[in-house]
Amino acid sequence: MTEIAPLLSHINTQCQLLFGQGNVANYIPELAKIKPQQFAMAVLTVDGETYTTGDAKTRFSIQSISKVLTLSLALQRYGESLWQRVGKEPSGTAFNSLIQLEMENGVPRNPFINAGALAVCDALQSRVSAPLHHYLETVRQLSGNSKINFNKAVSRSEFKHRFRNAAMANLMKSFDNFDNDVDAVLSNYCKYCAIEMNVVELAKTFSFLANKGVSQTTKETFISRKQNSQLNSLLFTSGLYDAAGDFAYRIGMPGKSGVGGAILAVVPERYTVVVWSPELNQYGNSVAGLHALELFAKEMEIQLF
Amino acid sequence: MTEIAPLLSHINTQCQLLFGQGNVANYIPELAKIKPQQFAMAVLTVDGETYTTGDAKTRFSIQSISKVLTLSLALQRYGESLWQRVGKEPSGTAFNSLIQLEMENGVPRNPFINAGALAVCDALQSRVSAPLHHYLETVRQLSGNSKINFNKAVSRSEFKHRFRNAAMANLMKSFDNFDNDVDAVLSNYCKYCAIEMNVVELAKTFSFLANKGVSQTTKETFISRKQNSQLNSLLFTSGLYDAAGDFAYRIGMPGKSGVGGAILAVVPERYTVVVWSPELNQYGNSVAGLHALELFAKEMEIQLF
Amino acid sequence: MTEIAPLLSHINTQCQLLFGQGNVANYIPELAKIKPQQFAMAVLTVDGETYTTGDAKTRFSIQSISKVLTLSLALQRYGESLWQRVGKEPSGTAFNSLIQLEMENGVPRNPFINAGALAVCDALQSRVSAPLHHYLETVRQLSGNSKINFNKAVSRSEFKHRFRNAAMANLMKSFDNFDNDVDAVLSNYCKYCAIEMNVVELAKTFSFLANKGVSQTTKETFISRKQNSQLNSLLFTSGLYDAAGDFAYRIGMPGKSGVGGAILAVVPERYTVVVWSPELNQYGNSVAGLHALELFAKEMEIQLF
Amino acid sequence: MTEIAPLLSHINTQCQLLFGQGNVANYIPELAKIKPQQFAMAVLTVDGETYTTGDAKTRFSIQSISKVLTLSLALQRYGESLWQRVGKEPSGTAFNSLIQLEMENGVPRNPFINAGALAVCDALQSRVSAPLHHYLETVRQLSGNSKINFNKAVSRSEFKHRFRNAAMANLMKSFDNFDNDVDAVLSNYCKYCAIEMNVVELAKTFSFLANKGVSQTTKETFISRKQNSQLNSLLFTSGLYDAAGDFAYRIGMPGKSGVGGAILAVVPERYTVVVWSPELNQYGNSVAGLHALELFAKEMEIQLF
Repeated sequence: MTEIAPLLSHINTQCQLLFGQGNVANYIPELAKIKPQQFAMAVLTVDGETYTTGDAKTRFSIQSISKVLTLSLALQRYGESLWQRVGKEPSGTAFNSLIQLEMENGVPRNPFINAGALAVCDALQSRVSAPLHHYLETVRQLSGNSKINFNKAVSRSEFKHRFRNAAMANLMKSFDNFDNDVDAVLSNYCKYCAIEMNVVELAKTFSFLANKGVSQTTKETFISRKQNSQLNSLLFTSGLYDAAGDFAYRIGMPGKSGVGGAILAVVPERYTVVVWSPELNQYGNSVAGLHALELFAKEMEIQLF
Repeated sequence: MTEIAPLLSHINTQCQLLFGQGNVANYIPELAKIKPQQFAMAVLTVDGETYTTGDAKTRFSIQSISKVLTLSLALQRYGESLWQRVGKEPSGTAFNSLIQLEMENGVPRNPFINAGALAVCDALQSRVSAPLHHYLETVRQLSGNSKINFNKAVSRSEFKHRFRNAAMANLMKSFDNFDNDVDAVLSNYCKYCAIEMNVVELAKTFSFLANKGVSQTTKETFISRKQNSQLNSLLFTSGLYDAAGDFAYRIGMPGKSGVGGAILAVVPERYTVVVWSPELNQYGNSVAGLHALELFAKEMEIQLF
Repeated sequence: MTEIAPLLSHINTQCQLLFGQGNVANYIPELAKIKPQQFAMAVLTVDGETYTTGDAKTRFSIQSISKVLTLSLALQRYGESLWQRVGKEPSGTAFNSLIQLEMENGVPRNPFINAGALAVCDALQSRVSAPLHHYLETVRQLSGNSKINFNKAVSRSEFKHRFRNAAMANLMKSFDNFDNDVDAVLSNYCKYCAIEMNVVELAKTFSFLANKGVSQTTKETFISRKQNSQLNSLLFTSGLYDAAGDFAYRIGMPGKSGVGGAILAVVPERYTVVVWSPELNQYGNSVAGLHALELFAKEMEIQLF
Repeated sequence: MTEIAPLLSHINTQCQLLFGQGNVANYIPELAKIKPQQFAMAVLTVDGETYTTGDAKTRFSIQSISKVLTLSLALQRYGESLWQRVGKEPSGTAFNSLIQLEMENGVPRNPFINAGALAVCDALQSRVSAPLHHYLETVRQLSGNSKINFNKAVSRSEFKHRFRNAAMANLMKSFDNFDNDVDAVLSNYCKYCAIEMNVVELAKTFSFLANKGVSQTTKETFISRKQNSQLNSLLFTSGLYDAAGDFAYRIGMPGKSGVGGAILAVVPERYTVVVWSPELNQYGNSVAGLHALELFAKEMEIQLF
């Protein structure tokens, strides 16, 4: 088997060649300020080894990767009944489209498109008294860093430009699929997205995905074995918006991307992989991040199927 | 580990309780004639053991499961360039919708919706001189039964009611994504769908999927290791029409269903599973078949993720 | 020529036979309270004669008919530049759909679907300091009744159930096609819709449409001759949601309906016709109202083309 | 009132200034061969006077204007029952879209989009034994020129590139809304579109529209007074594809355009107007033709509303 440390170093070199091929997220001013040509990668083995390359101490906005945690927290509280609020199917449309949402009577296709994540946040808000506090405490425990926080300028900027998401939430409300005040939920949603971590902290936070539901940081079961397997299946079919099929084809792992430039990928019972590079392709996925994962899968001969 | 033989027997008993909950395919008269309350299941291990239960010698129309073979044959000839003709993304819409096809300029979302399968058949027809003959020969070799054939009454009935598929093919032709005569391709397409096998023959035919691309019947590489892994990824994200996400969530295996009532499922490097029962749910998937696979996955503790 | 008075009497009798064939609007509780089996009709000639039948003194919610006045007021202030904010084309979709709005980048198809009316209200709000006051004053002058007001219970109920409209306004805001605070505009929009008039007052209010832009009440030019002609053209192509074509075919006049059960119709240079009956068909148009106008057009031999 | 002859001369001069602003139809090679910078206009009064300007003897492809005649012939035979096959509503989408057709179960929105015209041709074909012969005879009688014919090269080229239309016809067939052989209907449809006339002949052919249904050439009732009024209403709401609303707003007459560059417009009980200039705008309507009609409406002070 390939050694991980030199492989990551090689991947870093290769990925720097792609700098300039994408664009940083610019839909909110604060995110557009990021320095584009950055790269970091972390591999956490289920045995507890950590390997990194690049700017592994630089923190970044986790953005949509936060949706995986929101979903996990909601599944803890709702179990199967959560699926009355949101579907499990790939959407086949852009992450922020309202078309399908209207045609399917306000039930979002899956929890990883924006509408679905908002419905899940709303569900969580209905059952947790101080959801932001609880969310941050969970992230701090899972990541092993009690100082993790959200970036106020980013969350404020996201909230200021919340209209598309507000449209979705209101549309769901018109279909009786949104219980709380729209702005109250959006305010928390923007903060979850604005949480900042580095690649190692992010890998630790989601280490339960590769580890049968048990966090490698806390050693405790975060979600059940079965829920964990199901969550990975959902990430496989729907984790990368309307590029999920291509990701499954080329890289073949459960994964989740964020417009902050991070991608989380899972090799069940082996690795939690996080890669980060801010330049995005047309689908909102990190250009260098995708290439890094493709190289990693190829060299490590990871073929889940 | 659970013993397979008694498990299949148990599954058979359980599944018979579901008889009457679905409806046989009725979009063409010939298929509507089938006796509804039938059930069969076969498990082929990569070690070559075969286990069956139910009407395992009864042959049935493989219908859309034929799309997996068409795709494999086209990948053999085109490799990556095939993806210029058809996408790799879940469709998020019904298997026979033209809406997405028009909005995406005649490039079907994936090779398992009808439009995609037709594009693949057209591609195959362009590079194989006698495609029907070649297709049948391949099926006969892979299944190990030289008598496998298509049902003439079924293929004729499908061709007679080909208008929806003809609409798709013509729409692709208007976008220069269909090369051959529409009726010539449709004629073969209807015959591929009308091929009849029993559960064991069908499992053998697709044994390469669980076996790194190597047919367990011929012992030869049918498609490359990498292509096989990619094909399984595509089946995982798009094999069950717009119920793919639910199948991934509940059963968690690459799979492909057909309106003849069969479902093919793959446990990589372990089993090729085929289940058949003609009554379908609203998504066109076998009611008893889905339940059988769910029981199998649960009792065998199959969790790929 | 047919005498108007006996014709109206005949129409009243005929229309009462249709009672029970539709349903009153029920999307907000306050509107659902209305007594269903009511009917009134008024014909105002350009010579100043008024003919009525039925409950001609009963006031009702004008609902979407208010959109004609909002548009007129906005055209007074913006002229042709208003059409940068909203289109002039029939929508081909339901009055409250967001699908087209998303696909056409936040520019509503026309000013009579909800999204278009909201954009026009927003435009008006940007150029009128006290829009509600101005709107009410205008209605009072045009109707000749200084006591016209909106129904507080209805406007409050509409505002409470504003989520679908809020979704549209937020979606337009995300495309930079909505300037003011969403709730501030919606609050006024709900009040305009909740204005109550009887059939005579409503006919007087819109008498300018049949009279080359000159109000028959104030004797003043309300909008220019050309704008008036254009406004009637828009009402002809888009005034009855996705039943506009059928209305044009069967009745052949510019018209506008509201879910309060009223329909306004224009016979240029001859009559302003208002009919009201609360039971609606599946398209949200008054069942008896449509029949009344069809009888009126037939007996008066009105064929604009 | 403005004198017509000098007005047409003025319009001709003005319209030549627009040469170069559009593009000739290029979706079939034969149509793309036309010389772009041509202009002709004819006004036929209901008193029988004819005024022309420009290349009034040059014949051109009438293209979609043929749909008005197909519809008239079908209405003669089916009356109201024709509307079971095709709707009366504006489509809100492009003339050759299949999306709405699929969503509305194979019933085209109106008879002027391609799908609707094909359904009407199919209906006509079911009730007329030699439809092409009958169509040509009708055109020859109405135009007063027994030599009118279709251009074989154009109809052949259209048939060769028929795939989009074939997709629509097949989709309707899959919904049981198309009775005859697809290619048999398409073959005639392409010939109707390829009929060649000059502006005077075209005005004469459709003189019944301005004349209460009575042809000015044959002096006979072609369709009933009521059908004629209804037909004009349909032309007003749906005659110019998805620019119908703008045409109604700016020009305010019932009208029909064709990609050959002609536009037919009707001033009821006054004029039949035909203008032709091959350069088209993005909606497939003649650039100079639209301008000519706008000038004509303005100078003649035509305001139907």
